Amino acid sequence: MEIKVVKDIMGANDQIAQKNRQLFDKNKVFVVNVMASPGAGKTSLILETIKRLKGRVKVGVVEGDISSSLDAEAISKEGVPVVQINTGGECHLDASMTSTALDSLPLGDIELLLIENVGNLVCPAEFNLGEDWKILISSTPEGDDKPFKYPLMFHEADVVLVNKIDLLPYLKFDVDAFSKTIKGINQKVKVFPLSCTTGEGVDQWVDWLLGQVRG
Amino acid sequence: MEIKVVKDIMGANDQIAQKNRQLFDKNKVFVVNVMASPGAGKTSLILETIKRLKGRVKVGVVEGDISSSLDAEAISKEGVPVVQINTGGECHLDASMTSTALDSLPLGDIELLLIENVGNLVCPAEFNLGEDWKILISSTPEGDDKPFKYPLMFHEADVVLVNKIDLLPYLKFDVDAFSKTIKGINQKVKVFPLSCTTGEGVDQWVDWLLGQVRG
Repeated sequence: MEIKVVKDIMGANDQIAQKNRQLFDKNKVFVVNVMASPGAGKTSLILETIKRLKGRVKVGVVEGDISSSLDAEAISKEGVPVVQINTGGECHLDASMTSTALDSLPLGDIELLLIENVGNLVCPAEFNLGEDWKILISSTPEGDDKPFKYPLMFHEADVVLVNKIDLLPYLKFDVDAFSKTIKGINQKVKVFPLSCTTGEGVDQWVDWLLGQVRG
Repeated sequence: MEIKVVKDIMGANDQIAQKNRQLFDKNKVFVVNVMASPGAGKTSLILETIKRLKGRVKVGVVEGDISSSLDAEAISKEGVPVVQINTGGECHLDASMTSTALDSLPLGDIELLLIENVGNLVCPAEFNLGEDWKILISSTPEGDDKPFKYPLMFHEADVVLVNKIDLLPYLKFDVDAFSKTIKGINQKVKVFPLSCTTGEGVDQWVDWLLGQVRG
């Protein structure tokens, strides 16, 4: 009985995700769903990405948070269209919330839409939003054992950004071992080590993303 | 309709939490529910706490993870009784899972039970397990804005352990401002800054905990 309810919910979510997808295709919008633990650097990564894409690609942002609009305010200072979704306690974005946010965005004037999910390594992995890519930011202070603890998230990610590499001298974190572990779970995944604080590695990520958008 | 289902689930959880509570009282077990983001240091904190309590208090541990038994293996090396709960995808522990784990623990021979919840700042805050205290570990690399993003968790916590203070020289994190923000949300909360890596501040936390256990 309980499993049937879950199936129905997922079916409904996937149907709405499909409609979002059609809207993105119609407007030629490339869409990235950015997921991570709380404080891994989702907003910082989005800000650094926007700064480097200025004048090259028209960016829009959807900010997902349980409450507050702190992140949307920070991003709106960069002069890009941004919509805040407050989930009101829900631990993830779903396709329906995303669809509502899209009504408030000038999709015809956006080439790349960055969606910041709620900070959580579990639930967001279960809900498609209609995106092209799922990006997971995994920060070095979290430790290199996270793929064993949150396997679905690492399995679903198309790209893993290993953030906060500036802290590596002060931590026990083996980037090569971590990359190997992820690729053991998920052969297709791309891994970019970077630091949003120092900027190291961010250009490589942005150049690769630009290639995907123009793909 | 949907709200009614949620209410039923919560009611059922609270009923089972109440039964756990009666079992803890009968066996004179003091119970701490340890919650945090992924990688904030739950297992490290439990290990450091066990080491300092050796010969002073009889400790038992319940380890909650979506999958793997890495943490339980690390803790069993300390020679304390430990049970691993694998939630199989669920993003939090609930009272029923906890109740099942208790069947495998020698409760009559445990004075302090440490329950490590799934790494998640959202869902675990909604489920009572029958514990005495809810402990939130908030690590400095996550940033000092987390209380605004995850208000329920900070509201529910009886104690906030600010972990990884050894990294403060390399981060923008204001411990005093963070403490003030938390106390604005939650007047009763106790805050302990500490580092499981250097040991700084851990004795103060453990001494306080010991006082609570001895009532």
